[in-house]
Amino acid sequence: MGKRLLVIGGVAAGPKAAAKARRCNPEMEILIYQEEEEISYAGCGLPYYISGVIQERDKLISRTPGKFALDGIKVLRRRRIEGIDPQRRMIHGKNLESDEAFEDHFDQLVIATGAESIRPKIEGLHLKNVFYLRSIFDADAIVEALKAETIQRVVIAGGGYIGLEMAESLIELGKEVTIVELAPQILTLFDEDFAGILRRYLETKGIKIFTSEGIQSLIGKDGRVNQIRTTHREIEADAVLLSLGVRPRIDLARRAGLRIGETGAIWVNERMETSVEGIYAAGDCVETTHLITGKRVWIPLGSTANKQGRVAAVNLCGGHAIFPGVMGTAIFKTFEFNVAKTGLSLKEAEREGFHSVQAIVKGYDRAHYIPGGKESTLKVIADQNTGRILGAQAIGKGPSDKFIDIIAMALHGKLTAQELSNVDLAYAPPFSPVLSPVIVAANVLTNKLEGKVRGIPLSEVKEKLSTSKETFQVLDVREEDELQGPKIPGSHWIPLSKLNKQKGQLDKTKEIAVHCETGLRSYKACVKLQQEGFEKVRNIDGGMLCWCDDLEKER
Amino acid sequence: MGKRLLVIGGVAAGPKAAAKARRCNPEMEILIYQEEEEISYAGCGLPYYISGVIQERDKLISRTPGKFALDGIKVLRRRRIEGIDPQRRMIHGKNLESDEAFEDHFDQLVIATGAESIRPKIEGLHLKNVFYLRSIFDADAIVEALKAETIQRVVIAGGGYIGLEMAESLIELGKEVTIVELAPQILTLFDEDFAGILRRYLETKGIKIFTSEGIQSLIGKDGRVNQIRTTHREIEADAVLLSLGVRPRIDLARRAGLRIGETGAIWVNERMETSVEGIYAAGDCVETTHLITGKRVWIPLGSTANKQGRVAAVNLCGGHAIFPGVMGTAIFKTFEFNVAKTGLSLKEAEREGFHSVQAIVKGYDRAHYIPGGKESTLKVIADQNTGRILGAQAIGKGPSDKFIDIIAMALHGKLTAQELSNVDLAYAPPFSPVLSPVIVAANVLTNKLEGKVRGIPLSEVKEKLSTSKETFQVLDVREEDELQGPKIPGSHWIPLSKLNKQKGQLDKTKEIAVHCETGLRSYKACVKLQQEGFEKVRNIDGGMLCWCDDLEKER
Repeated sequence: MGKRLLVIGGVAAGPKAAAKARRCNPEMEILIYQEEEEISYAGCGLPYYISGVIQERDKLISRTPGKFALDGIKVLRRRRIEGIDPQRRMIHGKNLESDEAFEDHFDQLVIATGAESIRPKIEGLHLKNVFYLRSIFDADAIVEALKAETIQRVVIAGGGYIGLEMAESLIELGKEVTIVELAPQILTLFDEDFAGILRRYLETKGIKIFTSEGIQSLIGKDGRVNQIRTTHREIEADAVLLSLGVRPRIDLARRAGLRIGETGAIWVNERMETSVEGIYAAGDCVETTHLITGKRVWIPLGSTANKQGRVAAVNLCGGHAIFPGVMGTAIFKTFEFNVAKTGLSLKEAEREGFHSVQAIVKGYDRAHYIPGGKESTLKVIADQNTGRILGAQAIGKGPSDKFIDIIAMALHGKLTAQELSNVDLAYAPPFSPVLSPVIVAANVLTNKLEGKVRGIPLSEVKEKLSTSKETFQVLDVREEDELQGPKIPGSHWIPLSKLNKQKGQLDKTKEIAVHCETGLRSYKACVKLQQEGFEKVRNIDGGMLCWCDDLEKER
Repeated sequence: MGKRLLVIGGVAAGPKAAAKARRCNPEMEILIYQEEEEISYAGCGLPYYISGVIQERDKLISRTPGKFALDGIKVLRRRRIEGIDPQRRMIHGKNLESDEAFEDHFDQLVIATGAESIRPKIEGLHLKNVFYLRSIFDADAIVEALKAETIQRVVIAGGGYIGLEMAESLIELGKEVTIVELAPQILTLFDEDFAGILRRYLETKGIKIFTSEGIQSLIGKDGRVNQIRTTHREIEADAVLLSLGVRPRIDLARRAGLRIGETGAIWVNERMETSVEGIYAAGDCVETTHLITGKRVWIPLGSTANKQGRVAAVNLCGGHAIFPGVMGTAIFKTFEFNVAKTGLSLKEAEREGFHSVQAIVKGYDRAHYIPGGKESTLKVIADQNTGRILGAQAIGKGPSDKFIDIIAMALHGKLTAQELSNVDLAYAPPFSPVLSPVIVAANVLTNKLEGKVRGIPLSEVKEKLSTSKETFQVLDVREEDELQGPKIPGSHWIPLSKLNKQKGQLDKTKEIAVHCETGLRSYKACVKLQQEGFEKVRNIDGGMLCWCDDLEKER
């Protein structure tokens, strides 16, 4: 174990590794090299600083250089590292204050160079009021412009987490917001149905959303952006936020001859060691393993960076710790909606070759008789062959975070749907319905896995409605008083209470997709129809929970 | 598989079994026999009905007999079942309306007779305004009395969940509340430190609490209770709530020759079948397996009853489902405090022969820089030998439910502390600190399990302070600005920042228990002292988080 630790990068994984190394080894020399002026700041908090939820910029700084100094950790800011020599155990770089070159020696090295915003190859990037949001300085620039400039119409390019968090921040500040997304849906890591629920919600907040639409150029006037041209239209804009994702900063590692993984991020083993002994890497610049698929993935997240920084520190101090990988858990808040995911989406599960089934249920945060309940729609996905839970998504004003954390833990424990249906979760009326929505979803999955009633995803219903009308019908079994809201076009309506009498209206030769509001009564209807000799009966996953009427109109 | 299902008991497990059996088998004859007038009501919601949070009594009724009838389930109320003949597959009983005897035949039977309030053997139980709280009729009686009578001073006998929920309800209604508990602490399923935190909190709400104190008799005037005599004092009371726990209603099962388990509740296998084929039992009248200890336990809970009812139904319909057991998860709310537990307490773990270690941390519900954060204190316990997580407790205004559900899932997945320290939980600033408090606790446990710094529970500190002052000292390493609050009597104060200079003040021959506010800086101090040759250094679990000053004064 060497005596001199250098850390390159001072935002999340780097400072964490330095602090933990100090706790493991009070003797080691520890230096953090940081290119920017600030260190140890909360990148994930930036949208809340821009919206004014966080009023003081200082709150974003977890730990100042002075605090690090108290622990005997030296922080050198405004130093750009330009090269690593693994053989000589040296780094060299430039002091950005004095413009002088310097060298330094290490016994152990942690690379925590993070990620950077993707810049599209379009015209007009140089214009004023064209922003990214990655570093605290990006946030400073936005805050500054919102104060100094007359900015009313903002276009956000990219419908991912940051873009959607910023949509809220900007609406809160009274701006007009338009989102332009190249993919056919916002929130591409989620299934289409859940992305549709979010889209409908955001539209009620006055946000314009254009999908399947690429940005072609930014047009300016007097050096300021005033229009964005997409593949479909021109949009007037006083400011543009380019939120097209990030990519790992790996140049330094690549030039030093360190192995770059198949994802394009730095390869590390479970100990967070790179391909060169004694050189560790952690945080947004490294790839890791997806624990469901076993494949290498690059999913940059602040929480992962902190865990990895700790693991690197333990190991470089001679201890033994491993970071096995991630489940792809993610969450964000936009307005009152809590949107979260863990594991695989249905789409991803199919792509990975799983034969998967899904359950979609309404999930409240308390017993139905306690006033003030909040609801999220919850989807849980299982592998048809093994019953193992593969992932989940949750969206709504309810406790999406809790639901998703429970399922993330089910993934870590490799639980099957049947096992999940009996887990001992905390129940009292103010905290949960008597059966947790997670358990209800597991029960629905168990029924499906046993093949009693086959499910059909909404995407398949939509497809068949447009392509197979002669052989496919939709049966709505809701009662009369529930029919004010959206209906599935062309559906046949027989309330469950009248199904026995009126089932003769149905064509036994056609495939029948049944729905009610949430899926329980339609399940009963399916059982009944099957018993009456209907052979091609399927229960629509989640009933009307994911039917996005407005989305439909636009198609 | 038989065609006629009788269900005895109509509150939770019984109706659930009936409803699920109907979904599994649309043909079966299903009858529910219920002794009371009401069926399918939310027993757990009663304190909220009494407090007025739930205004309409009807909201407590999940499903009326009419709703059951729609599914072809017949509900017979006011029928007391008095005997089961397993050989003849008959039950007999009495119609409480007509006083007539009746018999009925079953192919399959579900016993869901629930539990009943324990009645102490003391004088005065017959007096007016002496209440229990188990059934909806108990709640009716309390609501009625609170309207009709002048009730100001209420004594609650028993400091368990129901008693503490009711304490809140009664204070909300403007009553004076005194709690009398026979055990040395309220909340006996929790460790002493956490029970102490709750006690201090309840005392700030104006509740008087007497522990280690038994009830001897109830004294009345004009037929109404007006005093309660305990082993220590007389307390004036306009009403008394006897909340001394419940016991399983097993008479019917016992007389039918069904096996009664070692806990005194009805024995069932994992399929929820009793010792007689085709006779199932579920809910508060049955025992199950504790999944950590492997022992039989009787832990009556509404959520468990619902899961068990479902499992019984699947099996009696010829399917295959198992209910493997419970983790002892429980939660309740009292005022703004969310109090929850899963698995074993430290005390229980020791009793079960585990050599266990604990981590106590502060757990926020969001990143520190997002305003409005709420905090719970979280304790996680692991087995020293295997590293496996054994249980957790959480208390405070923060998301105790979420923390405990995550740990409950860790228990189901049999995770070790090291595995728990890298789980992929949902992180964004509005939902969690960057490292979930669960992960922070797992990290503390990992450090302890590796033996770098030994922990010491507060109970041991207190004991040694009173018995071993010559060989034991407490070192407080907090900074000067933190010392306004409680201090541990006789502790030696050296702020961490001055420890290097002032460590000479400490006696190397004595055992030193170090603390700061939460345990992180004291951990650093321990590392430093060990490095300086101090051999008997221990870090106080959870620092000052569990130090209950007021509790101390009373001792």
